[in-house]
Amino acid sequence: MALIVQKYGGSSVADAGKIKNVARRIAQTRDKGNQVVVVVSAMGDTTDDLIKMAHQVTGRPADRELDVLLSTGELVSSTLLAMALRDKGYEAISLSGAQAGIKTDTTYSSARIRDIDPARVVKELKAGRVVIVAGFQGITEEMDVTTLGRGGSDTTAVALAARLGAEICQLYTDVEGVYTADPRLVPEAQKLTEIGYEEMLELASYGVKVIHPRAVELGELFNIPILIASSYNDSPGTLIHGGALMEVRNKVRGVTYDLDVAKVTVIGVPDRPGIAATLFEPLAKGGISVDTIVQNASIENITDLTFTVAKSQLTKAMEVVGPIARSIGARECVSDAKLGKVSIVGTGMQNTPGYAARMFRTLSEQGINIQLITTSEIRITCIIDEARVKDAVRALHKMFELEGK
Amino acid sequence: MALIVQKYGGSSVADAGKIKNVARRIAQTRDKGNQVVVVVSAMGDTTDDLIKMAHQVTGRPADRELDVLLSTGELVSSTLLAMALRDKGYEAISLSGAQAGIKTDTTYSSARIRDIDPARVVKELKAGRVVIVAGFQGITEEMDVTTLGRGGSDTTAVALAARLGAEICQLYTDVEGVYTADPRLVPEAQKLTEIGYEEMLELASYGVKVIHPRAVELGELFNIPILIASSYNDSPGTLIHGGALMEVRNKVRGVTYDLDVAKVTVIGVPDRPGIAATLFEPLAKGGISVDTIVQNASIENITDLTFTVAKSQLTKAMEVVGPIARSIGARECVSDAKLGKVSIVGTGMQNTPGYAARMFRTLSEQGINIQLITTSEIRITCIIDEARVKDAVRALHKMFELEGK
Repeated sequence: MALIVQKYGGSSVADAGKIKNVARRIAQTRDKGNQVVVVVSAMGDTTDDLIKMAHQVTGRPADRELDVLLSTGELVSSTLLAMALRDKGYEAISLSGAQAGIKTDTTYSSARIRDIDPARVVKELKAGRVVIVAGFQGITEEMDVTTLGRGGSDTTAVALAARLGAEICQLYTDVEGVYTADPRLVPEAQKLTEIGYEEMLELASYGVKVIHPRAVELGELFNIPILIASSYNDSPGTLIHGGALMEVRNKVRGVTYDLDVAKVTVIGVPDRPGIAATLFEPLAKGGISVDTIVQNASIENITDLTFTVAKSQLTKAMEVVGPIARSIGARECVSDAKLGKVSIVGTGMQNTPGYAARMFRTLSEQGINIQLITTSEIRITCIIDEARVKDAVRALHKMFELEGK
Repeated sequence: MALIVQKYGGSSVADAGKIKNVARRIAQTRDKGNQVVVVVSAMGDTTDDLIKMAHQVTGRPADRELDVLLSTGELVSSTLLAMALRDKGYEAISLSGAQAGIKTDTTYSSARIRDIDPARVVKELKAGRVVIVAGFQGITEEMDVTTLGRGGSDTTAVALAARLGAEICQLYTDVEGVYTADPRLVPEAQKLTEIGYEEMLELASYGVKVIHPRAVELGELFNIPILIASSYNDSPGTLIHGGALMEVRNKVRGVTYDLDVAKVTVIGVPDRPGIAATLFEPLAKGGISVDTIVQNASIENITDLTFTVAKSQLTKAMEVVGPIARSIGARECVSDAKLGKVSIVGTGMQNTPGYAARMFRTLSEQGINIQLITTSEIRITCIIDEARVKDAVRALHKMFELEGK
């Protein structure tokens, strides 16, 4: 008898029929003699609908109140799922984040889990029940409700799996696993049977939306195998784990992309210590999340600083940076909102020269101009014109021979 | 500086515009220097919508899960109201029933409040905040969410007012107060400026829907003045209190009616001890709420037993009673689903003969046949043909001179 944590995303519980389907799948897992803890997201577009309601009342909803409001979405789906399981004759109970002992800090709207007190979950499991936990939410020491931000339910599931010592954390969603590239873009893309934490972290951070990077990090930290699979069929999915990978290692594992990239360049910055902090501290305070930062080598103590932000934050970023650029004596400040990025990821790239060169040559052959380059040990990312991103993904997928046989 | 508890019903917070209106009214109360605790119901038809969702998943939703599901309705309205107040520059915080310390027994779907721990509410009031409490919900010792059943938010409000020692509990709703009769039926009906707890209890129990009887009882027990008034205007409303009433006491105070009455008569019952228990215990176990019970004087040890139930429960009641009637040797069992009841209420009737006679004569003059009669010290109720209920209300309202000058 194993303890299994399963998580079902919002599209998998979007209506009563889908909730019953999920109940059927949980029942199958239970019938095999497993203890099951299920983490569930809010139904379909519930979270967006609740945010809209808040904005009908006020232009600036208070974080604390918004978190309680959003947390109701998962309370609804978790209770309905518990009802559906009981209707099938299975003992089941729903628990809120608070009842499941998910203790967080007080950073409303993007709280971090500090600790999990598993007493209630363990008690219900011992009583023979399937435990349905409302994802995405926790509680502070003061007993105030918080939400965990984007990818919150993935994080709840992996954290619970870690704390409970589960054998595996299974994330069920509307895709069948992790692919070598987005199958909507590259029909030849192959589903990966398995992938390492680090590679998955790079893929998730650079465009693959099937799992949130936080959940991958947490899985790696506690060495919890994570399965990503479809909630609609029994296709085997992709296993994220830390063991030796069976597949060929010396290889690019996937090509990923992101169309939500805007660029700000501060031109002619006098290069002296403290300049970067002067620029980026006010951006952080303004809640603007800066992604890539590139500083050119300075010529005669004058340099250019470029950074990227999400397109929706470009206007605000320019408002913040403009006056600072003037005050530090920069020449001018320009932006470009029509960018995207394309990345290749794979541990096989580590310490192996030639991948970057092949990537750049491939893009060049397509007539694609590279605006910025950033790399990690196992990833190379190029920022390019958004109109050429899809061509770039297809060409790179072919170049690195990811179509399979 | 007074402490005031206000409660706003579901129709008063049905959409964003109405929530802003309620925020404006709370702000006015705060501006006068009062401390304010607000109890709020779920928006509009939310509770019914959530029940429908549960029934799409299962024909018999588990009580515990249903209570958590329904409790989300008040979490949504309370957070939106807190946001609306903050938007107007007022410090405000929403609290769930659990956070507000509303401790109940474990009778899911109709829990009773056992105690209130006011620590968090008091702390937030001291911090200068308006405290918005989600009505209708509480928490068990095991930290499981319960709901209080029909009239739950009224009960939350009066219980909080009692525990906090509030000066008054104001219930704002979509009517302007308590009338001598339903104004939709009797255009001449007068709004009562004030009314005693006992009279209000009888009116609320016998058809007036503006406040739940539980809340009136609780108000009487702790001597909390309760104001019933409109959330849409500043009309003075009706004050329920225990002091000497200014208005003439020796008077009928109101005429009330209820169209949801069905009757079951068991004819020819051998009259021996235990017969009533044999009949009514299985009804109670079947969840059938029996209202009026009348047993005729027995002739030659044979009697007739009549009781009334809500129309929706008649079929089930007949299913339960039929076999029992046969087993105890009763002659037959008949029912009538087309009944209603009309009542006159007033402490002025206490120890004063003649009210019953005048009521019966009035109905007789209208050609209305009385099927059953029940009385309390301050109420007389007649059960009659449902088609004649409205005529009866109008005639009695006129007879007892309730139209005012």
